Amino acid sequence: MPSKAILIILDGLADRPCREFFGETPLEAASTPFMDYLARNGICGMQSPLGTGFTPESGPAHFEILGYHPFRQYYPGRGPIEALGAGARIKEGDVAFRVNFATMKNGRIVDRRAGRIADVSMFEHDLSMEIDGVEFILKAGTEHRAALIIRGDDVSENLSDSDPKKEGKRPLKIKPLSKDAEQTAKLVNKYLELATEILEKHELNRERRKKGLLPANTILLRGAGRYRQVESFRERYGLKACCIAGAGLYKGIARHLGMNVINVEGATGTKSTDVEAKIKAAKAMLKRYDFIFVHVKGTDLYGHDGDAGGKKAFIEKVDRALQALHGTKSLIVLTGDHATPCSLKDHSGDDVPILFYAEDMIKDNTYRFGEHECMNGGLKRIEGKDIMPEILNLLGKEEAIE
Amino acid sequence: MPSKAILIILDGLADRPCREFFGETPLEAASTPFMDYLARNGICGMQSPLGTGFTPESGPAHFEILGYHPFRQYYPGRGPIEALGAGARIKEGDVAFRVNFATMKNGRIVDRRAGRIADVSMFEHDLSMEIDGVEFILKAGTEHRAALIIRGDDVSENLSDSDPKKEGKRPLKIKPLSKDAEQTAKLVNKYLELATEILEKHELNRERRKKGLLPANTILLRGAGRYRQVESFRERYGLKACCIAGAGLYKGIARHLGMNVINVEGATGTKSTDVEAKIKAAKAMLKRYDFIFVHVKGTDLYGHDGDAGGKKAFIEKVDRALQALHGTKSLIVLTGDHATPCSLKDHSGDDVPILFYAEDMIKDNTYRFGEHECMNGGLKRIEGKDIMPEILNLLGKEEAIE
Repeated sequence: MPSKAILIILDGLADRPCREFFGETPLEAASTPFMDYLARNGICGMQSPLGTGFTPESGPAHFEILGYHPFRQYYPGRGPIEALGAGARIKEGDVAFRVNFATMKNGRIVDRRAGRIADVSMFEHDLSMEIDGVEFILKAGTEHRAALIIRGDDVSENLSDSDPKKEGKRPLKIKPLSKDAEQTAKLVNKYLELATEILEKHELNRERRKKGLLPANTILLRGAGRYRQVESFRERYGLKACCIAGAGLYKGIARHLGMNVINVEGATGTKSTDVEAKIKAAKAMLKRYDFIFVHVKGTDLYGHDGDAGGKKAFIEKVDRALQALHGTKSLIVLTGDHATPCSLKDHSGDDVPILFYAEDMIKDNTYRFGEHECMNGGLKRIEGKDIMPEILNLLGKEEAIE
Repeated sequence: MPSKAILIILDGLADRPCREFFGETPLEAASTPFMDYLARNGICGMQSPLGTGFTPESGPAHFEILGYHPFRQYYPGRGPIEALGAGARIKEGDVAFRVNFATMKNGRIVDRRAGRIADVSMFEHDLSMEIDGVEFILKAGTEHRAALIIRGDDVSENLSDSDPKKEGKRPLKIKPLSKDAEQTAKLVNKYLELATEILEKHELNRERRKKGLLPANTILLRGAGRYRQVESFRERYGLKACCIAGAGLYKGIARHLGMNVINVEGATGTKSTDVEAKIKAAKAMLKRYDFIFVHVKGTDLYGHDGDAGGKKAFIEKVDRALQALHGTKSLIVLTGDHATPCSLKDHSGDDVPILFYAEDMIKDNTYRFGEHECMNGGLKRIEGKDIMPEILNLLGKEEAIE
């Protein structure tokens, strides 16, 4: 019986029939001999992260898959998780927003990503301040991304977004979504005015303009949430866990659950991420941890772009990287957090294939890892919340219920 | 359509691939022509007693399978159920413990079963007493087993165990697990002192020592619970039910649900139980009852011993016994309450094969009764709580939900 597990989540893995593959999905059309080997020697099925038909964002799906069910009890919203992902020191009770640095011209947003600026950490200091006894702390993430922490005695998280989501529009005023949020909304709007003034005149933006680059002359806020600690993964399951991920959201989720985040060079959370380095690191971490959560974002990005060929090729890259795990005595669990069908360029509520592989476990007749084959797998259809109990069962880590 | 049903639970039936059977499970490797006949002429699937991955003790699994879901609403804990199994007259509000007669030397437990003493009923009278207005009633079970009922106005069930579970250790003091249990804990500890004094000097133990046998000179308590009546099986389903079982737990569960317990000679709840006599009795009882619950413990015992060959041979013995049911017009349901894989020597959260057989019902393509074949059965994957609704459906006893 394995004593350790690797859970690999290929973001947005599941898909729908693609014309270019004569009705096969990118996963089915891809050449994936190692995933097929795991499927053939393990047990497969389909999993519905939040229950039949529901379409999840990645955050809620991950909470369910990691056994924090129902996710609303544990998920503080995107703001605090992004702050954790960026490495901010968020405290119980803090409110946080996700932040985009953007380019504004004549009061309208002309680029929601400020010309894909590579780094915004040089704005951290100037955009952190105190207003009327409330602290505003800006923490840079990757590229144009950041988090804003709001710390004070009576701050509320019931706040609307300022991000208009579309270019060509004006930023929105932050609105209070409850009576007790009126004062916080007023302060955040004041902060946004000040921040925009500071950025407009900022030396770094003067330089960007000189170079013909779009200035990062305003910030857009969304996803306000209040941070509260939850039972750690280790307390909950008795497993010492780490996370290997590129994107901030997944690092943030891992930190929220008390997992150690292992930084792997080349793990960028983008299409060009070094999957091989991530899987090698995961294999090495089996010496120090009981549970390795590996997140790979590329599959989802190709899905959002509607690029079935790119998604197929990326899955093939993942398969080659996974081959480093051949011969492992550990449990391997491979799935996605939701479907991102290329035909939709968006998430859907379709089921996601899942496989559990370990030596000496009950196996089924699945020959290949794909949506249609997993549909006939021995696990049939499970939900996201069923995954951790099955992992604990296969690790023999579960106390019998008396 | 059948009007009567036999539910046969082979405890710990499900297993994992066994090396000695080249990867087959004991059930798959066993020659079971009659179970296969039932599978072929009925409908099969896999059932997860408490939901995917969760590992049950037998008590909770049986409550779920018998449709008392969620089990915590109905299951009073092991103490009261063992008391009922031993035939004690337990009353609403009584607190009860499971009891082991044990051998203590220099304050340490040297045998948790007092040399497998054959009968402890001769201690019942001397170990039943009143302390400070609280009644302590000892009721002998099979071999070294007994139950202790505690009856009084303010007794609490929030009590820890005195059984250290391992030999070589000292018995533990009973601790209160809530503020209002302090007085009860004090009285139980006083009772344990008195009981040990009485047993130490007991004439029967003097005789055992003379014969070179280990004395039953103390008792160990575990599994405190408070008894409360629940809706009977007959009220709930309109079925007059009886139970044929060897072990006390299952008789206790049956009595708790208002089933009549039929005592069958040779039904011991051990590996040497007379399965043939039990099945013959079940067949005979179809004349007087609508629902026969037959429990067979041997499969679980072989699993705990890691004896795959023994488990296989025992399943073959069950198959031969079941042949007495050939030609019945009744519904036959055959399953286990959980997996006890020989490779683990313990329960697991794996799915358990299940079959429903009746004339004139929808059948599937399952050819043999086994873990892998049932995985492809028409019922797919169900949970323990789904079994009784399906039985009622096949008996035509279910009112349509309006």
